[in-house]
Amino acid sequence: MKETKPIGTLDLFGLECNKREFVCRKLQKVYQSFGYDPLQTPGIEFAETFSGHHGEGENLLFRIKDAQGKDLVLRYDMTVPFARFAADHPELPRPIKRYQMQMAYRDDAFDKGHFREFMQCDGDIVGCQSLTADADIINLAVTGLKALGFTNFIIRINHRDILKGIAEELGYRRREEILRIQRALDCADKFSKAHASVSNFTHKLMARNFSLSEIEKINALVFDSFNLEHPEELFKRTNNNISVRNGIKELQEITHYLPEEILQHCVFDLTLARGADYYTGFILEGIIPDSGLGAVLGGGRYDHLVQNCGGSDIGCVGMAFGLDRICVAMEEAQMYPNLVCPKILIGTSQHPASREIFEDTNILREHEINCDLSFDFTDREQALQYAKSRSFYGVIWDGEYFSLNDSPQYNHKIQTLLKEQPIFKKRL
Amino acid sequence: MKETKPIGTLDLFGLECNKREFVCRKLQKVYQSFGYDPLQTPGIEFAETFSGHHGEGENLLFRIKDAQGKDLVLRYDMTVPFARFAADHPELPRPIKRYQMQMAYRDDAFDKGHFREFMQCDGDIVGCQSLTADADIINLAVTGLKALGFTNFIIRINHRDILKGIAEELGYRRREEILRIQRALDCADKFSKAHASVSNFTHKLMARNFSLSEIEKINALVFDSFNLEHPEELFKRTNNNISVRNGIKELQEITHYLPEEILQHCVFDLTLARGADYYTGFILEGIIPDSGLGAVLGGGRYDHLVQNCGGSDIGCVGMAFGLDRICVAMEEAQMYPNLVCPKILIGTSQHPASREIFEDTNILREHEINCDLSFDFTDREQALQYAKSRSFYGVIWDGEYFSLNDSPQYNHKIQTLLKEQPIFKKRL
Repeated sequence: MKETKPIGTLDLFGLECNKREFVCRKLQKVYQSFGYDPLQTPGIEFAETFSGHHGEGENLLFRIKDAQGKDLVLRYDMTVPFARFAADHPELPRPIKRYQMQMAYRDDAFDKGHFREFMQCDGDIVGCQSLTADADIINLAVTGLKALGFTNFIIRINHRDILKGIAEELGYRRREEILRIQRALDCADKFSKAHASVSNFTHKLMARNFSLSEIEKINALVFDSFNLEHPEELFKRTNNNISVRNGIKELQEITHYLPEEILQHCVFDLTLARGADYYTGFILEGIIPDSGLGAVLGGGRYDHLVQNCGGSDIGCVGMAFGLDRICVAMEEAQMYPNLVCPKILIGTSQHPASREIFEDTNILREHEINCDLSFDFTDREQALQYAKSRSFYGVIWDGEYFSLNDSPQYNHKIQTLLKEQPIFKKRL
Repeated sequence: MKETKPIGTLDLFGLECNKREFVCRKLQKVYQSFGYDPLQTPGIEFAETFSGHHGEGENLLFRIKDAQGKDLVLRYDMTVPFARFAADHPELPRPIKRYQMQMAYRDDAFDKGHFREFMQCDGDIVGCQSLTADADIINLAVTGLKALGFTNFIIRINHRDILKGIAEELGYRRREEILRIQRALDCADKFSKAHASVSNFTHKLMARNFSLSEIEKINALVFDSFNLEHPEELFKRTNNNISVRNGIKELQEITHYLPEEILQHCVFDLTLARGADYYTGFILEGIIPDSGLGAVLGGGRYDHLVQNCGGSDIGCVGMAFGLDRICVAMEEAQMYPNLVCPKILIGTSQHPASREIFEDTNILREHEINCDLSFDFTDREQALQYAKSRSFYGVIWDGEYFSLNDSPQYNHKIQTLLKEQPIFKKRL
């Protein structure tokens, strides 16, 4: 079949839109309950705004040259535009807590639940150095997934300082080398969905020219499981590296703030690296083990991004829900309530149509009955068939109501309206 | 000041987002009340999808080449993607009535309420040949503006056949010539905001190489006012041109269906041409005379667009609300209700923070009190100042509530929660 729209993009119609909206409004309510304000930024930004923040992700930018010859890119994420916004608005009182639900664009290969255009639903705090903000973000992540109805999910947490410390103890001290390890880990991690595997990671590191003995040393650390409450073993095996110790200390403080029902979803996982270069502290990712999907949320602390965008050097931390994957997971687990928008079809065998039928239909609409007025059907059976195929709640044909739903309240309301305003029966 | 984002784009924060959402939800409710289903299409489409439909507008397409070398463009409007969608889905029962609220992108000069990225809010019917559908669209346009609170607005209506007939009577029979007149009229019309002026139109036609005597003949017709109920004078002056007669007949039928309270907003206006090439019948545009803005909505019938997009040849008619201009008009006329999202700030003088304060805040959130938990303030005064600057409804400081709003119900609810769960006072 001939492709009629770009790969990795979706048309959403009817119920599919309602599902997306259901998820967005649930998450919006959670963000509001945490006191976050909404933000919308443009779909196009200057190319330089998105330059230098996303590591290998920068190859995935969709690029445009506008009529004035400016180099633009499509919004790659919401984090960088928020940092740009915060830098642009030093007059706004700090901290700024904002949520943002818009499309992001990445010119990438695509697989299940992973598109080239996809909706992100970000929550970030700018201007807060305290680690209580990091705890707020984990609290938010867990509360959001719970509000959608998920029960079996895991929030993986790690800290960039720990990865840096591990790299240092293996003899890598330059930023580029550390990034190379992080990126390999992230790449292996993404490839394996829920958790990076030893063989994938080994493969990715080899492709990045690490030696086999180096790789074995890294693997021995990141694939072991260490206890956040008792990190002595990790300290020992990383020679009391100061970065490792600092990362652990921060994660201990963050988790210390979290209520037990939040904490029970969190797992300390050294194979989590995240893709963006800009993270400077704790990182997190949410997975739904039963779904076979990649991360449904991700984020972390990124302290210098606002400064890099021309603002002052203030603390930043945040996360994003990946709406598309969340919707796939909810679909597969049949977690949506009934989201059909109730409506009836109004038709008539009287042709040509009369002004009165338009008037009466508008009156029904004023009584909050959603009415599709249509003159495309010549007989009642045809109208009923169409109405059934589009999940209508009923049909009014020549003034008579035919119910197609099992809600007595709904049917009663329409019957009453038809009875109370007898003019309907004559004119509809 | 250095530009940090592309011209003709907006950042919307906090209350500004709430206003946009208010307008979208009002219009969504109107669309739902008319039985329309939601649709979302991608922000990027194949360049060929948008080729050949928008006349001079095609110069305004933002163009992208993707990693696979495909030529893509940003969504220029919602009409063409809907036609593409309808052509892609012959299995969906006809008629399809859909609404769509997404961003459109045009690489254009920009002025007040006219952006390079702007939100459109479209409603269209595909698969309906009857002119009752055209009446549905006008009904929708008027109902939408009324639902937003507008009272003083005008729906200008015209018919492409009438413009064609006028061109024919002046000796122009080739499609290109007719388009040239239409486009000049549209260009003059846009330039003059509410109504094309003789001098502007003359200027635009001269720039398009029409002679002065030709221009005088056209002006004498389109700038005269004719009566839709008694079109004899127009018929006479266009030599009973069959296209003119057909256009008038259709407009008469369409307006015949409209209830008086809808019709009273409609004006027959021969200077209305609309920009898109694809219109084939009635056209409409909505203006708010007091606003000094261009059209706040526009549309018409475009019968062959689905066929041009690879589908069957079915009737199409629709319109789009221009959200940005509507928001500008509502702002200037102070038509928004209070859209501040109620929330309180929770802070404490106890540092470091405790797990209990996180627990208690989550309990308040479960009771639908929006709570921003923040540890960025060392004393109460600082917290209160911040809360005031962000329009918070109050502050809980060390367990004590300080109201910043005048809603007794809201304050009572919080006081009661604090009293009923005395643990709060000790721990918050």
